Amino acid sequence: MDKVDDLGRVTLADVAREADVSVSTVSKVLNGRTDVSPATRERVEELLRRHGYQRGPRSGGDAPLIEIVFHELDSLWAMELLRGVEAVANGYGAGVVVTHSGSRHAPGPEWIDAVVRRRPLGVVLVFSSLPPDLKRQLRSRAIPFVVIDPAGDPEPDVPSVGSANWAGGLAATRHLVDQGHRRIGIITGPDDMLCSLARLDGYRSALTMAGIEPDPGLVAFGDFHAEGGYASARDLLALPDRPTAIFAGSDLQALGVLEAARVAGLRVPEDLSVVGYDDLDIAKWTSPALTTVRQPLREMAEQATRLILRLREDEPPTPTRLELSTTLVVRASTAAPPPR
Amino acid sequence: MDKVDDLGRVTLADVAREADVSVSTVSKVLNGRTDVSPATRERVEELLRRHGYQRGPRSGGDAPLIEIVFHELDSLWAMELLRGVEAVANGYGAGVVVTHSGSRHAPGPEWIDAVVRRRPLGVVLVFSSLPPDLKRQLRSRAIPFVVIDPAGDPEPDVPSVGSANWAGGLAATRHLVDQGHRRIGIITGPDDMLCSLARLDGYRSALTMAGIEPDPGLVAFGDFHAEGGYASARDLLALPDRPTAIFAGSDLQALGVLEAARVAGLRVPEDLSVVGYDDLDIAKWTSPALTTVRQPLREMAEQATRLILRLREDEPPTPTRLELSTTLVVRASTAAPPPR
Repeated sequence: MDKVDDLGRVTLADVAREADVSVSTVSKVLNGRTDVSPATRERVEELLRRHGYQRGPRSGGDAPLIEIVFHELDSLWAMELLRGVEAVANGYGAGVVVTHSGSRHAPGPEWIDAVVRRRPLGVVLVFSSLPPDLKRQLRSRAIPFVVIDPAGDPEPDVPSVGSANWAGGLAATRHLVDQGHRRIGIITGPDDMLCSLARLDGYRSALTMAGIEPDPGLVAFGDFHAEGGYASARDLLALPDRPTAIFAGSDLQALGVLEAARVAGLRVPEDLSVVGYDDLDIAKWTSPALTTVRQPLREMAEQATRLILRLREDEPPTPTRLELSTTLVVRASTAAPPPR
Repeated sequence: MDKVDDLGRVTLADVAREADVSVSTVSKVLNGRTDVSPATRERVEELLRRHGYQRGPRSGGDAPLIEIVFHELDSLWAMELLRGVEAVANGYGAGVVVTHSGSRHAPGPEWIDAVVRRRPLGVVLVFSSLPPDLKRQLRSRAIPFVVIDPAGDPEPDVPSVGSANWAGGLAATRHLVDQGHRRIGIITGPDDMLCSLARLDGYRSALTMAGIEPDPGLVAFGDFHAEGGYASARDLLALPDRPTAIFAGSDLQALGVLEAARVAGLRVPEDLSVVGYDDLDIAKWTSPALTTVRQPLREMAEQATRLILRLREDEPPTPTRLELSTTLVVRASTAAPPPR
């Protein structure tokens, strides 16, 4: 029923012969049909990949698509990335397909089947690692993919775009040290994400360079959401020798810190300084406006999308890791500590 | 090059004969090609529409798409709608194409060309009105569309989903009256959007029903963003007889009101009560947490998407206007006014 347009040098008949299956089976694999045994599917994919089988985008390039897939579609963070992909795709005349799938680590299996059927120009994945199966399926169909990996844990064989987490943690903490703070708490992200650890290391280095011994009692791990920021800040602010400043690992966590301060009767920045991370639009409109580390999310997504388009055009292999810089944005939530 | 699969009763040849053009010209119109004169395009579209020409979705239904198009992709508001569309489309096995195009009133012309080429199952439009041209182009290709219209200004011939703006304005204001407020300011949305006017009327009715004469000096029009909320609140709080409560027309505007209160040295809710509108995720994490009117954005988007799928299946015509209810969510930003 579904005809396959073969634009590559190797024909489907060649692949079918070599795999010892019918042409229709090869076509089924290409079209993401599920009525093919896993072993056959794998053999055909491997042959397609080895021969560099090239297939034109759907509808002969008339209605190209670029895909972005998230495991979370519920934060401003995701919106920033989407805007970046949309801006570049739009300029290229491509539609953007958005999918919400899987866990923090990889998209769900139903997604890959749909992508194979849609045959997009390429895929932007917002995941920290990819199962080998998924990589093989995309590669065997010549669908380029790039990982946006703010988690900072790139795989060497996958092109990825991230940002400078260690430098961001360093800059945030230095700013607080420069204001005169000595008791500085940190609420970083989950302890199984490299970006959390990189920011924490940046914080520790800034303290050590300033001659301040890092206090493990001032270190907390959050979930990058407001809830986690609130719970951790409540604990930090209840310490007998409470911190005079908190570096929250994300702007959303900083919202939780601001609320914990209000509940504890502490004014920001007079009694407590707060630094966020990300510089979402909302950071300008917290009360007071948030000092934060700008992570160029939109630019990261733009770069990832451009990289996909370059990969399609078979330009000479670009660096597989692009790291954009982070910058400190000083607003009203930081000041000198209160006199003791 | 591009073959058209004709599933309808009328054939392309019939339409071509009647329009006195070649079959290839009809095919060009169907495929959104631009090398057809506007007059011819219009004549062919009119004939296709009149004959109820039906065309199967792209790729024989193998990789169906649903489109959502926004004029703004920069707020939490858009994210909520996207999540609703994604949830329903996902359950249906369809991909979601997101486009950012046009002005508040209609998507740009480049969008419609792309949609015609992509041939989606249907289109969710987040716009307050649609140009007749666009409606004609979608209808002639049997692409169903539904407007999500929180602006409350539906066109009678377009299926739309909205929410109860007047009742929302009434509930917000009643809550403040019940707390004992008499000087209540309102910052509603732009004065050319019906939703702004409906909320304002709900506010006025709640005051009148409580025996309070509405004071035009306490009414401001914003832009639904934090900036506008801040500027209007600053003016209201500088009045000699300043309001003890402000009903902000959106949660984003409420962020601006909270900041204006902080800058003016007023505590929320002790010195000033604030009510938002929308109940975005962020409303739980303002300081203090925001009392607001919940607008069921995600559900509105889900309903719009389901309506599209029903329209495709030619179910008996459903009501063309679906209005979901709004509910007051009381949190920590409202209290009795300070003693005078």
